[in-house]
Amino acid sequence: MGMFNPRYARLFETVRIGPKTAPNRFYQTPHASGMGWRAPKASAALRGIKAEGGWGVVATEYCSIHPSSDDFPFGYLSLWDEDDVRALAKTAEAIHAHGSLAAVELWHGGFHANNRLTREPLLSPSGQRAKFIQPMGARAMDKADIAEFRRWQKDAAARARKAGFDIVYVYAGHDYLPLQFLSPRTNRRSDEYGGSIENRTRLLREMIEETRAAVKDDCAVALRLAVDELHGPKGITHDGEARDIVGVLAELPDLWDVNVAGALGNDSKSARFSEEGFQEDYVSFVKKMTTKPVVGVGRFTSPDMMMSQLRRGILDFIGAARPSIADPFLPQKIREGREDEIRECIGCNICRAANNESIPIRCTQNPTMGEEWRRGWHPEKIAPKRSEKSILVIGGGPAGLECALALGRRGHQVALAEARRELGGRVLAEARLPGLASWIRVRDHREHMIGKLSNIAVYRESRMTAEDVEGFGADHVVVATGGIWRRDAIGAFGEEPLSLPESDKILTPHDIERLAGTAQSIVIYDDDHYAVGSALAEMLKRQGHKVTYVTPAPVVSSWTQMTDEQGFIQSRLMALDVELVLSHQLKGMAGDQARFVCVYSGRERDLTCDTLLLVTGRVPDDSLYRDLVHRLPQGTVSAIGDCHAPSHIADAVFAGHRFAREFDEPRSELLRRERPEP
Amino acid sequence: MGMFNPRYARLFETVRIGPKTAPNRFYQTPHASGMGWRAPKASAALRGIKAEGGWGVVATEYCSIHPSSDDFPFGYLSLWDEDDVRALAKTAEAIHAHGSLAAVELWHGGFHANNRLTREPLLSPSGQRAKFIQPMGARAMDKADIAEFRRWQKDAAARARKAGFDIVYVYAGHDYLPLQFLSPRTNRRSDEYGGSIENRTRLLREMIEETRAAVKDDCAVALRLAVDELHGPKGITHDGEARDIVGVLAELPDLWDVNVAGALGNDSKSARFSEEGFQEDYVSFVKKMTTKPVVGVGRFTSPDMMMSQLRRGILDFIGAARPSIADPFLPQKIREGREDEIRECIGCNICRAANNESIPIRCTQNPTMGEEWRRGWHPEKIAPKRSEKSILVIGGGPAGLECALALGRRGHQVALAEARRELGGRVLAEARLPGLASWIRVRDHREHMIGKLSNIAVYRESRMTAEDVEGFGADHVVVATGGIWRRDAIGAFGEEPLSLPESDKILTPHDIERLAGTAQSIVIYDDDHYAVGSALAEMLKRQGHKVTYVTPAPVVSSWTQMTDEQGFIQSRLMALDVELVLSHQLKGMAGDQARFVCVYSGRERDLTCDTLLLVTGRVPDDSLYRDLVHRLPQGTVSAIGDCHAPSHIADAVFAGHRFAREFDEPRSELLRRERPEP
Repeated sequence: MGMFNPRYARLFETVRIGPKTAPNRFYQTPHASGMGWRAPKASAALRGIKAEGGWGVVATEYCSIHPSSDDFPFGYLSLWDEDDVRALAKTAEAIHAHGSLAAVELWHGGFHANNRLTREPLLSPSGQRAKFIQPMGARAMDKADIAEFRRWQKDAAARARKAGFDIVYVYAGHDYLPLQFLSPRTNRRSDEYGGSIENRTRLLREMIEETRAAVKDDCAVALRLAVDELHGPKGITHDGEARDIVGVLAELPDLWDVNVAGALGNDSKSARFSEEGFQEDYVSFVKKMTTKPVVGVGRFTSPDMMMSQLRRGILDFIGAARPSIADPFLPQKIREGREDEIRECIGCNICRAANNESIPIRCTQNPTMGEEWRRGWHPEKIAPKRSEKSILVIGGGPAGLECALALGRRGHQVALAEARRELGGRVLAEARLPGLASWIRVRDHREHMIGKLSNIAVYRESRMTAEDVEGFGADHVVVATGGIWRRDAIGAFGEEPLSLPESDKILTPHDIERLAGTAQSIVIYDDDHYAVGSALAEMLKRQGHKVTYVTPAPVVSSWTQMTDEQGFIQSRLMALDVELVLSHQLKGMAGDQARFVCVYSGRERDLTCDTLLLVTGRVPDDSLYRDLVHRLPQGTVSAIGDCHAPSHIADAVFAGHRFAREFDEPRSELLRRERPEP
Repeated sequence: MGMFNPRYARLFETVRIGPKTAPNRFYQTPHASGMGWRAPKASAALRGIKAEGGWGVVATEYCSIHPSSDDFPFGYLSLWDEDDVRALAKTAEAIHAHGSLAAVELWHGGFHANNRLTREPLLSPSGQRAKFIQPMGARAMDKADIAEFRRWQKDAAARARKAGFDIVYVYAGHDYLPLQFLSPRTNRRSDEYGGSIENRTRLLREMIEETRAAVKDDCAVALRLAVDELHGPKGITHDGEARDIVGVLAELPDLWDVNVAGALGNDSKSARFSEEGFQEDYVSFVKKMTTKPVVGVGRFTSPDMMMSQLRRGILDFIGAARPSIADPFLPQKIREGREDEIRECIGCNICRAANNESIPIRCTQNPTMGEEWRRGWHPEKIAPKRSEKSILVIGGGPAGLECALALGRRGHQVALAEARRELGGRVLAEARLPGLASWIRVRDHREHMIGKLSNIAVYRESRMTAEDVEGFGADHVVVATGGIWRRDAIGAFGEEPLSLPESDKILTPHDIERLAGTAQSIVIYDDDHYAVGSALAEMLKRQGHKVTYVTPAPVVSSWTQMTDEQGFIQSRLMALDVELVLSHQLKGMAGDQARFVCVYSGRERDLTCDTLLLVTGRVPDDSLYRDLVHRLPQGTVSAIGDCHAPSHIADAVFAGHRFAREFDEPRSELLRRERPEP
């Protein structure tokens, strides 16, 4: 246990927010959990853990005020009726149980909603298409619609108060309805709600005033505002109209929660495209224009960076979504002088992907995220061991590191054997790719924490044979030897293996060191669709190779649509003049000719290259495991992570953690589930 | 009321299925509802309505046997535990209440599942990538995995019996796990489950035998088999290995449910790409190889076509998914000699889109689909009118027709005024596009049914002014004047209007008759992303124009990914040599130069053309409505459908129906909801 560093005292000052007092300056800003009303128990548990970990204010995700703002199947909340009050009260209670303030982000999506569950017509200031690609339009609101909308906000605010929330939001961010009224891009009205900035701000002012009237003196009213739409002068800019808006509303809300919009991808930008504190230049003007406390975000994980934000008068509250996901106990760790133990967000946006996929949240760094209720996992507590068994973990990648650490926390004697000198496994290679350096934190955190536990022995440069393992004599062996990039070109589109020639022209990501010092014509074939293919393209192009990126998908790195990165990635490759050949599937290779076929037309196309680099997927590197299952007593050897089923890093960490949690425990195949009564 | 046509008697014979007897030959084959375990009450109501409508067998959607086959957020069922038994028993009861047999489609997806809820590793015969683009792989099952898998099927079958189902499926279709074992494309095993067709069939045989053992003599065992993967000789073909499979298993199941795979899009192909009965050539061999009853599908809506299938020995049961969605009472209508009243499926696949979007099912033809429980809507019953009010409906498109019909069914005096001679509104134009002819059924059915009701007067060629309406003197006026294609180019990507020149070179779909008899260079700009843009491209190209299709999306008609049509559409345009310019957004037009910008690189590109055809979205054609709201007493005029909020045809029909259902009824903003308890 460390000692509290008085340098950080200011982070733990109380702060008034209207009629309420936050116990410190740590503010978990609203963030999606992929759960919403589908999982009220799991949602409450997730927010409760944040409060337990020391976040002075804990907010919900977006909470619809009316069925005309329905985002199904995405995980949103609702405050439409008394049933919703009852459900959300559980979240407020879970937050209050730890002395934190509970905030609820009331939300109307306008033409950014989908209404695919409720089938209500979409609303917008001036008539638009549905923002998501849907074959539907949003009608232009008339005066009666605006009056109704104001009533919905007011009624939902009254319900929020009844549910026990301390802070109620007026939400003009992320391209949702109030922002649609603010922005000249989408507000083309000619009445008193359109035209001048005063007119476009009218609805927001009314919402704040009426929300306050609804909650009386029992709740604070927060305004969440996007201070820059990142659409240039056509939209609201931080050095343009945002100043007018903040100027006229300055003292009206009790709290300013400010960020960049329009798309969520601009706000929660991944580490590949942004640095810690990247929003500062956009939001720093706000505090100069109001005496009310200001909260902002920027993927803050460093207490010194947080202090700098306070000292320099940028923010009053350190807002966090992703850092609070990666480490719900970040504030407590600072308070206890354990800054070194913070599990820092790597900015991979796998949490964003969960929301975009309409599934419960998950986190690469924090395998307990989203599992607080359904598996009963606590990020900082783990059940003591049930036996005195010693465990040998083979492989120091994400799965092995997490497994060893969690078993060690349970009190087991653990040996971790890694073939290489450096721990990290696949993250070593991936963190070397452009933009992915922060991914090494997956290794660093675990290596550091393992170093604190005397019951975990780490053996480096210790490649184990089956004989070695037998000789080692552990009671249980966990094989976490990772995966190998495929050479048979099986991928997401290509389900069958290709019979490619044995050729030193055909490489996988394992072989890229061979390209060092050469200047080649390289075709990267990406049937993996996540980060590595495009990152390699960027790296090799920057190294001076001629790079052609081919994929059977219609876009570069198509799965990164889920991490809000796809547009940024494809733009970057195009800016670098990487040649793109989209919607083409690999058929084979002969000599220096790689043959592709258009997935739509069936037309073939040959590309000449020095090297064909296959990025299509991984197979388990499980030869040791297969050996061991035949040699060791049944039930004493297990494979985890990529060695078991290759997946992304978050799944590897999860697998390692899960193994440790379930080791020696009564086995259950079923999660706790939240389902409607039949 | 008609008289039963004895020609159709055979459709109403009972048929033995193992220990059970189906009351007739109408078989609602398994189909997704987008609901699954998320909506047990709504699911039970939906299936109960099918039974009430006369389907002798009613099946569920896919029902997972184990958490390692989880398709969240898609709407699947599960039989993992006793809670699931209790939930599904309600569906079985609802079906039994009408004397029909209840079938449950037990399912394991293998590498076609996602497991994003349960986070279990994916399974596959030989190691694959996740079939959907996910950054994860599926591990190769070992012998122990296969033994486990067999136990899961057996346990789930026992639960199905307990829940009261009559028919339990073994499901080897649609690229799911048992088919993955059958197909040489994905089974590369060298043990007794791989290699020869006998080996690849082994698991299926075991599953059938063990399912039978689990259900004892209480249930029939159905085998659903994809008899052609449509992958050519690499996969299972109906004239190849499928015959071997059917040959060796011929008498083992109690029922054969046969179709084409692999992707669901091949099975439930839209009308744009298939005719009624399109699967006959694939499945007709099956009945020659077994004495067990055979069910197959083919979007059958014609009783004569159905009889032909029976007479010619193709099928024993008329299987239907989409036709039973469009008209749950199809069998009853034939039995009662009301074939003319069948609401025929138009094959638009908006029902498939609901499943692909993870939202509750909807239907263009049947606005009550999915609303049986939550809104209490019955497809054939509607509450009598609450008042003697007369209603004038203006506009004979989908919304107006449905609204007039449903109001008429309630007993109101209804006048329907249509400006043109022909009824149909937008479907008139859309049904003229290549492949969309069946869409005219939306009009035909309603026109026909309206003709039967003496309380609905139809006025053709009756364009109404506000004065005309005032003079008409109806108690209530419903304006359903539809929408107008935008000329400002606002679309899904382009949120702001473009200031395009007034030019006869810039057209919208309303203007295409102007192109008749010319041979032009046409640029179609599709920021609508549904059917019309690509269908126009096809039509104009076939008419001899030079056609360039430009869209800001990375693919042609991107939303049709939801209707399982996107691949077919883009392939067709490429086969026709329509030039495609993807990921480019319209910026403006000067002279004969249309300017586009790449959405990724920002690079501009000019295209020379005689005509720029804008397909970007619709605005309400609501000038009459706006006039009327000022002239008529408050609350006596309403806008519905595209005139209110432009959307797809299903939404227009829904809006018309909803208006009629809710007219004069106590208003509630809230649907009945199914949510977990907090």
